[in-house]
Amino acid sequence: MTTHYFEHPLNEKTRIYLRVEALLNQLNVAAQFSDNMQHLIFYRSLFDLLEIFEQIQLKSELAKDIEKQRLSYRSWLNVEGVDQEMLRDVLNEVDSVHSDLMGAERFGQSLKEDRFLSAIRQRFNLPGGSCCFDLPALHHWLHLPLEQRKADAAKWLDTLQPLAKALNQWLKLTRETGHFRTIQASSGFYQSDAEEANILRLEIPMHFGVYPMISGHKNRFAIKFIEFDSGQASVANVEFQLAVCC
Amino acid sequence: MTTHYFEHPLNEKTRIYLRVEALLNQLNVAAQFSDNMQHLIFYRSLFDLLEIFEQIQLKSELAKDIEKQRLSYRSWLNVEGVDQEMLRDVLNEVDSVHSDLMGAERFGQSLKEDRFLSAIRQRFNLPGGSCCFDLPALHHWLHLPLEQRKADAAKWLDTLQPLAKALNQWLKLTRETGHFRTIQASSGFYQSDAEEANILRLEIPMHFGVYPMISGHKNRFAIKFIEFDSGQASVANVEFQLAVCC
Repeated sequence: MTTHYFEHPLNEKTRIYLRVEALLNQLNVAAQFSDNMQHLIFYRSLFDLLEIFEQIQLKSELAKDIEKQRLSYRSWLNVEGVDQEMLRDVLNEVDSVHSDLMGAERFGQSLKEDRFLSAIRQRFNLPGGSCCFDLPALHHWLHLPLEQRKADAAKWLDTLQPLAKALNQWLKLTRETGHFRTIQASSGFYQSDAEEANILRLEIPMHFGVYPMISGHKNRFAIKFIEFDSGQASVANVEFQLAVCC
Repeated sequence: MTTHYFEHPLNEKTRIYLRVEALLNQLNVAAQFSDNMQHLIFYRSLFDLLEIFEQIQLKSELAKDIEKQRLSYRSWLNVEGVDQEMLRDVLNEVDSVHSDLMGAERFGQSLKEDRFLSAIRQRFNLPGGSCCFDLPALHHWLHLPLEQRKADAAKWLDTLQPLAKALNQWLKLTRETGHFRTIQASSGFYQSDAEEANILRLEIPMHFGVYPMISGHKNRFAIKFIEFDSGQASVANVEFQLAVCC
């Protein structure tokens, strides 16, 4: 049975985190340049990231959140019944990504200073603007040997490693706080308390033919299922899996 | 020897034509959805096209240009030394695409009226905005069987066929008017008359390590070669191939 895995952030900061995670994933795959269009995804994702970096102080936000996570895990030290070895591993890992994060440059700094990337970025958002006459330098680059292009991409992505590691760590620990439970949305609707949650995770069987519209914030949320075919609110009793992650 | 094939439009209308051609090519490849990121290129290209359709009266511009081409080819009818059979084939083809073009809907009309596409389009340009929580309907669609997604894409692309055929025909005949000649750009610079030309086509050997910056209009153009590595104007004598197409 096919399942639609779905995540919903319950605050604006987590919304940005999930977008950044998706962009980093796209970058890593597209950096293989395994067909002649992946560079479009690569550069688009890179420039989307730079735009996000310009909009919010991602580094300090993330550092604060990692610190909060560290304090929360520390409170389990020497508590009976808690696997202390596993806990120390997690704390070491958190310390390591936090320290790399604090030592990192301002996110995107060296990418923004890169002459080649800056020249491309200006025109990349024009509709259809990735033609050779709009971006002659990019088209020259596309003719360089694959190994050279991959090396360029690796060099650029390397500058994002402290961000990627810290973000992945925070999201991993956050997702682990939630446990999937079977939920029945009567007449396509379900609401509940969220208790300072950051992310809702859903698994929705495809055979219902519905997708979720979720509203909410850290303390309360509502899920309304929409019929894909009609675009109307579903009145079916939709049974799905839900994990609330703090 | 690797060669950088390069095209440059000498007027704004041809610039749009080449962008639209590139977007249509991207659409056709991405409509295979052969990896889990091609949908990003597919939808981006589709929405870029819709944006172009909103900016210029592409259909009437293209109809005028096809008509001009038809008149120009008609003037060769019954001229001695001209292959009349081949000429009639071309004229039949031009008549056919022109008539399909005139019978077509306003470009993008049915795509703009599509509920699913309209819903996606609104959020697609957000940086990182293709996450499931930004576009739940799209993520449901991504879980549909490949055949169904391909059928949707084929249905949407079908509405662009009159445009694609007319544009390809016009560009094909336009490109055929030019013939490659070997040109020497002394100290990285070349200029010449263009005689009502629409497109410059260049083939630049990669070993020079340069890309062209071209300025010009239908009657005159200048090509300045830039060193890729330094970003500075090249002072090398660059030997390249050039075709001026009317």
